[in-house]
Amino acid sequence: MQSIRFKNNRLWYLDQTELPLKEVWRECRNLEQGFHAIKNLRVRGAPLIGVFAAYCVCVHLKHLPQAKGAFFAQLKKALKYLSDCRPTAVNLAWALEQLWAVAVTNKEKSLPEIKKALLLEVQLIHVQDRNICSQMAVFGLKLIKSGDNILTHCNTGFLATSGEGTALGVVVRAHKKYKNIKVYVDETRPLLQGARLTAWELMKQKVPAVLISDSMAAWLMQRKMIDKVLVGADRIASNGDIANKIGTYNVAVCAKYHRIPFYVVAPFSSFDSGLTCGKDIPIEERSGDEVRTVFNKVRIAPQAIAAFNPAFDVTPHELITAIVSDRGIIYPPFGKNIPKVLCPSKK
Amino acid sequence: MQSIRFKNNRLWYLDQTELPLKEVWRECRNLEQGFHAIKNLRVRGAPLIGVFAAYCVCVHLKHLPQAKGAFFAQLKKALKYLSDCRPTAVNLAWALEQLWAVAVTNKEKSLPEIKKALLLEVQLIHVQDRNICSQMAVFGLKLIKSGDNILTHCNTGFLATSGEGTALGVVVRAHKKYKNIKVYVDETRPLLQGARLTAWELMKQKVPAVLISDSMAAWLMQRKMIDKVLVGADRIASNGDIANKIGTYNVAVCAKYHRIPFYVVAPFSSFDSGLTCGKDIPIEERSGDEVRTVFNKVRIAPQAIAAFNPAFDVTPHELITAIVSDRGIIYPPFGKNIPKVLCPSKK
Repeated sequence: MQSIRFKNNRLWYLDQTELPLKEVWRECRNLEQGFHAIKNLRVRGAPLIGVFAAYCVCVHLKHLPQAKGAFFAQLKKALKYLSDCRPTAVNLAWALEQLWAVAVTNKEKSLPEIKKALLLEVQLIHVQDRNICSQMAVFGLKLIKSGDNILTHCNTGFLATSGEGTALGVVVRAHKKYKNIKVYVDETRPLLQGARLTAWELMKQKVPAVLISDSMAAWLMQRKMIDKVLVGADRIASNGDIANKIGTYNVAVCAKYHRIPFYVVAPFSSFDSGLTCGKDIPIEERSGDEVRTVFNKVRIAPQAIAAFNPAFDVTPHELITAIVSDRGIIYPPFGKNIPKVLCPSKK
Repeated sequence: MQSIRFKNNRLWYLDQTELPLKEVWRECRNLEQGFHAIKNLRVRGAPLIGVFAAYCVCVHLKHLPQAKGAFFAQLKKALKYLSDCRPTAVNLAWALEQLWAVAVTNKEKSLPEIKKALLLEVQLIHVQDRNICSQMAVFGLKLIKSGDNILTHCNTGFLATSGEGTALGVVVRAHKKYKNIKVYVDETRPLLQGARLTAWELMKQKVPAVLISDSMAAWLMQRKMIDKVLVGADRIASNGDIANKIGTYNVAVCAKYHRIPFYVVAPFSSFDSGLTCGKDIPIEERSGDEVRTVFNKVRIAPQAIAAFNPAFDVTPHELITAIVSDRGIIYPPFGKNIPKVLCPSKK
């Protein structure tokens, strides 16, 4: 179960826009192809785009100048180019900043040594992401009970990370342990990551799952068919406000109304300590065609109708029961407890 | 602007499953064609299916036996057949019950006279539905202010009635009066009545409209982009609980959370005094293929994934700010005020 592969300095990715109808692996040969793979959501999921972008830099290294000054200038440009590709998830910027830090730390060394250090760092980011997923799954499992019916939104499994996933990783672990977990999957319009990707992942892993249209979730809650909600996050502010796939806030409001626990599962790299609250998180607005169509192919509305297409929304911390990180479960008050759990050495 | 036509004892309908791509008028030649037109949502909208089913009976009259006993037996069978076609909207059963009452009242008369009485009753139901729409629009207009941003769900315009509509009728009237009304249209998965029909109607009538995916509504509310919500209803219980298109409850919960007024617009024939509360309203469950696909054609999920597809949900009265009927605006407490407004002569 993996969504990217890197071998002999060649980078491959499973094209997520072709799922679930086809499993197509494509090679990413240069920076531009990497940029477009992320931009067009062929590679997606906050943690995965961080790892994938880092590998794109590896592929790009051979195209960089041999003179050190020019090398650093071009490297910086490449990192900036990739970093601006999608604005909301902080993991992308985080991974690329790690690379820059490594380059700067090693700047006195020879270029081959610098490149080697960068490659090592990317592999570290990759392995780390996989381990982080396992740790989140272990912590998250404590929140799940035998027989739970879990609602999830968007895709947060092995397609969204380079490991077993964030929220969906917890769900699959719970299934393996209890054998009686049921998952309700929001289709997640407009791009249908739930219907296309989460449904496909859960079937691959033989987890009992039921697909619903997004607007049905509240009705299922009213009928007591949902015990808890688990979602991922693209960015988490210092006060615990989270940005995640559009529709997450809708689910959170409904969960609150029905007194259903609402859990967010995200690695430490999704936390942005530079942001005091969610309203400062940049929200990517995508083309209205994604709303007027399905898959940018099948038209579902008049061609000329205006459409609004924010790709993310912000769920304020007061709607969140707990945040599961790879370093432990964080309960409110988040402002106090996020630093406590993430950086236990700091007072 | 009309969605059905009846002339020289021939019945035509605009096939709503073809919109917005094509405007196709089809003839309904017999009872079975009428049944399937309703069942397959070619003709839809609670008020419209009542009127259309009544016309189907007119088309069917010539096929009924000449002996009075057999005529009544076959008529009863035909009414039952159509009435069972869709269980949630009460208007369908209501219209057909009116016809049966007319037949029974005139049972001593000759068959041609009985048929004439039935035809007259159907025309009355049709004209009445049109007038009722105007009355709802007049009352509803009192709730709208200049510059309002209105969210609506599903389709409740001239395609859903034989007049100007229920909730959308109010919206279009408000547009004509104020010229600065903006409408946000929930696409209304799975069958996309908002994207296909409401968007098309609003464009036809030049009302400024913005299409959104259903799960975006909460985010718009958080950002103060919605001033009020207007929806229709398929059935209203005595306590004010309403059944309406799936997703209505989701919108109502979000409106409540954001303290946004939530208005229901429905004719008196949608009120079911026989039901004390919403939990007794039968909820039609449709094929999971509607959720796994778009238009039953384009697959968006793994073929074998389970899917849940309730066509309606129930919004409890405590989430409803007011119900606009053709006889006036009804405010809470609904249990007391529904009979007061609908049957003012009764104490």
